[in-house]
Amino acid sequence: MRYSKIPNETVRRLPVYLRGLAIMSRQGLSSVSSSKLADFVSIHPWQIRKDFSYFGDFGTRGVGYDIGNLAKQIKKILKIDTTRKTVLAGVGNLGSAIMSYTGFGIYGFEVIAAFDNDPSKIGRRINNITVEDISTLGTLYKRQIDMAIIAVPEQAAQSVTDLLILSGIKGILNFSPRRIIVPKKIKVITIDIASDLARLPYYF
Amino acid sequence: MRYSKIPNETVRRLPVYLRGLAIMSRQGLSSVSSSKLADFVSIHPWQIRKDFSYFGDFGTRGVGYDIGNLAKQIKKILKIDTTRKTVLAGVGNLGSAIMSYTGFGIYGFEVIAAFDNDPSKIGRRINNITVEDISTLGTLYKRQIDMAIIAVPEQAAQSVTDLLILSGIKGILNFSPRRIIVPKKIKVITIDIASDLARLPYYF
Repeated sequence: MRYSKIPNETVRRLPVYLRGLAIMSRQGLSSVSSSKLADFVSIHPWQIRKDFSYFGDFGTRGVGYDIGNLAKQIKKILKIDTTRKTVLAGVGNLGSAIMSYTGFGIYGFEVIAAFDNDPSKIGRRINNITVEDISTLGTLYKRQIDMAIIAVPEQAAQSVTDLLILSGIKGILNFSPRRIIVPKKIKVITIDIASDLARLPYYF
Repeated sequence: MRYSKIPNETVRRLPVYLRGLAIMSRQGLSSVSSSKLADFVSIHPWQIRKDFSYFGDFGTRGVGYDIGNLAKQIKKILKIDTTRKTVLAGVGNLGSAIMSYTGFGIYGFEVIAAFDNDPSKIGRRINNITVEDISTLGTLYKRQIDMAIIAVPEQAAQSVTDLLILSGIKGILNFSPRRIIVPKKIKVITIDIASDLARLPYYF
């Protein structure tokens, strides 16, 4: 079930809260006030309270939030309370950076497979994953993967997307600035470095 | 001057419109309807009209938008109607991918310098830029750079940020999941791959 009417901006902040809570938990804390959490994740306290108000109230007045419980609730809302498998398509510079990245664990994710079409990359091991031949992507459906990260060159993005969707993936993190066309039920989040840079000067 | 009360979500979409308009212009088009533009950038027509309504009305009923004029207006709003120089800190896998990336030109940006602390990288030329020694970052202020992209390891992010701010940069695109502390007048946009991935399942 999806909580209705949650603004995208709130959904965007939930993982940020979650990371903050995970770090606090590692530091041995068990509860936190909204102002402490706010300070920790650099988001305004009223914003946090407003975000949390969409899901009922998580906190206890004067005590604050139970860190473990709050993290559990947020994971449930984001539907990441189960393990989510991820596949990477494209092991160029960007793909290699993603494979070496250790920050997914905090959310219970794992990149479990990586594909490329470059013979010099196929078979290479990065961070315990062996790069596979992208021409075998058609067999991926057997591995029940939910999400894909697309880091292939622009002109290959659509064909790789089509194959991934046939394999049963439901969501795509897309690094290609070319828009990719997907069925309505597939969610695409595009990370567009140039356009993120382009909106910086607005705030100068 | 900054147009007031523009939602961040609208600012986020303006570069996307701009890229669509640039591609259309290259294809030889001179005007476009909001529904055509909507289709091209995969954003709903009413969303586009609503976004544009914050700046007065750009279109002419029955004719649509003049592509050149609309692009010019959006650039002005985003304050990218002048050339903006960008520096890159960190030339690992991610930094190398950024240096090889050709998508900044559409917004009139240029990565004009790159720094790293790895002797094996210093002096290397990537995409016409020679990687410089990060210990010389203190001289950067002479080059009047507006923006920085931070792609250094987490533990180096804050000290590099401090040096960049001393060099006069006003905005940072930050790839480090560690929050960086900056003075109020500096704008930071964080690209957080793990948390983008973490909000995908919400939409399943």
